[in-house]
Amino acid sequence: MRGVVMHAPGDFRVEEREDPKILKPTDAVIRVAAACVCGSDLWPYRGAEPINAPSPIGHEYVGVVEEVGSAVTTVKPGQFVVGGFSTSDNTCENCRAGYQTSCVQREWMNEMGAQAERLRVPLADGTLVATPGAPDADLIPSLLTASDVLGTGWFAAIAAQAGPGKTVAVVGDGAVGLLGVLAARQLGAERVIAMSRHSSRQKLALEFGATDIVTERADEGVAKIKELTGGFGAHSVIEAVGTQESMLQAIRSTRPGGHVGYVGVSHDVTLDGQELFFSHAHLHGGPAPVRQYLPQLIDLIWTRQIDPGKVFDLTLPLDRAADAYRAMDERRAIKVLLKP
Amino acid sequence: MRGVVMHAPGDFRVEEREDPKILKPTDAVIRVAAACVCGSDLWPYRGAEPINAPSPIGHEYVGVVEEVGSAVTTVKPGQFVVGGFSTSDNTCENCRAGYQTSCVQREWMNEMGAQAERLRVPLADGTLVATPGAPDADLIPSLLTASDVLGTGWFAAIAAQAGPGKTVAVVGDGAVGLLGVLAARQLGAERVIAMSRHSSRQKLALEFGATDIVTERADEGVAKIKELTGGFGAHSVIEAVGTQESMLQAIRSTRPGGHVGYVGVSHDVTLDGQELFFSHAHLHGGPAPVRQYLPQLIDLIWTRQIDPGKVFDLTLPLDRAADAYRAMDERRAIKVLLKP
Repeated sequence: MRGVVMHAPGDFRVEEREDPKILKPTDAVIRVAAACVCGSDLWPYRGAEPINAPSPIGHEYVGVVEEVGSAVTTVKPGQFVVGGFSTSDNTCENCRAGYQTSCVQREWMNEMGAQAERLRVPLADGTLVATPGAPDADLIPSLLTASDVLGTGWFAAIAAQAGPGKTVAVVGDGAVGLLGVLAARQLGAERVIAMSRHSSRQKLALEFGATDIVTERADEGVAKIKELTGGFGAHSVIEAVGTQESMLQAIRSTRPGGHVGYVGVSHDVTLDGQELFFSHAHLHGGPAPVRQYLPQLIDLIWTRQIDPGKVFDLTLPLDRAADAYRAMDERRAIKVLLKP
Repeated sequence: MRGVVMHAPGDFRVEEREDPKILKPTDAVIRVAAACVCGSDLWPYRGAEPINAPSPIGHEYVGVVEEVGSAVTTVKPGQFVVGGFSTSDNTCENCRAGYQTSCVQREWMNEMGAQAERLRVPLADGTLVATPGAPDADLIPSLLTASDVLGTGWFAAIAAQAGPGKTVAVVGDGAVGLLGVLAARQLGAERVIAMSRHSSRQKLALEFGATDIVTERADEGVAKIKELTGGFGAHSVIEAVGTQESMLQAIRSTRPGGHVGYVGVSHDVTLDGQELFFSHAHLHGGPAPVRQYLPQLIDLIWTRQIDPGKVFDLTLPLDRAADAYRAMDERRAIKVLLKP
C-alpha cells in the first residue's frame, strides 16, 4: 500500500509500505477514507524533533473497518469509524478517569502511520467509535477533525473551564485554536476572543463563534486582553501553540483564579515558578483524551449542529502529501486533508 | 512600642519602633495578642531575599482592636480579631472570586510588621474577622494559625481537590504541610500520606489525621507514592515547600488528571513545559486567600472541632524573637509563637 514516510526534515515521501495486518486479537485494520496533516507533524518536518530512521507518520484518521482480531467486540468489518490519535483500552483507571491519552496501554497512532491507504489500530474496542451509518461525503472532513483537532480544542476549552458567563481568550489560530473557539461557544461561553492576525483565520474564527478578534501578540496581546476585560484578564484561556511566547501570553492573559487550558505540544517551554505562583492561574492540559469526547462530537457532527470540517482549506490526494506539508509549513493552508 | 526589625540575614532584632496610627479612614490599629514566625520569614533570614534597609517583619497575628478609622464598620474597639496575611477590600472582582490575596488593593502585612506589640491593619473591614467573643487563652494559638498556616494548608487542600474517595500526598512537613494534612482530612479525604522523616513532625501528622507516613524523598519518594497507589500516583498532592525538588516531587507523585495544590513560595523553581504537558496534572496554587476561609476556620476552632495550634511547639516572649528565628532556621522548632 501507499503511505507517507519521514526520511529527514523537509523530506517526507509517499512510498510503498507493507500492508498492515492483525498482529494482536485486539487489533483492527481499517481502509483509510481520509487522513490529514497535523500542526504537530510539522515539528519533525521542521527538524524540531529527531528522525532517527525512515518512519511512517500521521495520527488523524477515519475509515472503514476491513478486519478485526478475535477479541474485538464493539466494531466490525464494514463499519465507518473514527479513532483517537492514541490508542486506549478505555478500561484502566486512567481511562475511566477520562484520561485515555494516559492509558496504561497507550501507543501513539503516529507510529502506525495514518497518512496511508490502510491502518492497523491496536486496542480497537477502546480506540475506535463507529458512526451511526455510512456518512454522507460532506460529513467526512468534520468526522476527521474529531480524531484530533476538534477533540483537542474541546479538551482545551474544558481544561480552561469555558462556560456560561465566561470570557475566553484563544492563543493560536491554527486548526486547534479555531476549534477551541467553536468548543468554547458550544460550551456556552459568553465572549470568545480569538487572537489572530491572518484574515482567513479571523474569518473562520468569527464563523465558529468568536465575538472579538485581537491582532496584537505577546505583551501587547496581553495588554489588549486586559483592556477588554476591565483590567482583570480572561476567565479562561486556551493555549494552542506550544511555544514559550504563547504559554506566557496565555498565563499572563488569565485573571487570578482563572484557568489556562494548554494543548499545544510544549517545545522548549520553561515556566518560572514564582510568576506562576503569583498569577493565581489554574493550569491544565496535555495530550487531549479525544476518545472521551468522540461519541458526543460524532453526534454533534452527525446531526449537523457543528461544522468543524471548515478548517480544511485544502484537499489533496495522498500522493501529493509532500505538497500538503509544504502548504502547512508555509502557512498557506490552515489544514490539509489527504485522500488515499 | 517593641517590634522585630530585619537588619541583615541572620540579624533580626527587637527594637523600639514608632507606634502605629490610623493613616486612612479604612485602617484599624490592634494590640497584638500573639504573632509568630513563618517559614517564609526564613527566606530573608537565610539571605534568599534581599533586605535593602532595616524593615519590620511578621504577617501572622491575632489581637484586640484598639482604634478604627471613620470608614470602618464591621469591627470595633475591644473586639478580638484574626486577619489575613495580606490586606483585601473583599469587594473587588478578584476578592469576590475568592482570591483576596490578588485584591486590587492588596498590601502585604509583612510591610506593617506583625511581630510587634501593636499593628496597623489597612482595609480593616475586608481584612479582619472578629471572633464571637473574647477567646479562652488556650484557643489563641489555634486562632493565630488561621491568619496564615492553617488557611494556607486549607487552600492547598482545596486547590489539590482533596475530598471523599481521594488519596492525598503532602510534600513538606512544616506547619503548612502538617495543616494541609488536617485540612485534607477535614475535607473528607480517604487517605492522607504525609512525607516526613522527622519523628516529632510524623507524630503531629498522625494526630492531624495522616493515614500513612513516607520517609523517602525526591525520586524515591515519588516511587513510594506510586507503590502505595497501585502505580498511578495520588489524586491530590499538596506542595508546601517551594523548592525545585519539592515541586517536581509533587508533580511526579500526581496521577494523570490529578491535582497539585502548591503553596510553598516558589524560589528558583522552573518547570519544564513538556514534562508538565505529559503529566496530565492540574496545577493551582499561589498565596492562599485565607480571608475567604476565616469565618469557617474560626468556627471550627471556636467549637473545638480542630486544634491546629498544636503546630506551635515553642512559645517565646516577643523580646526573644532572635531565638525564635534561630530555632526555626535550625528546624529545632516546627513553629514558634511570639507573645508581645
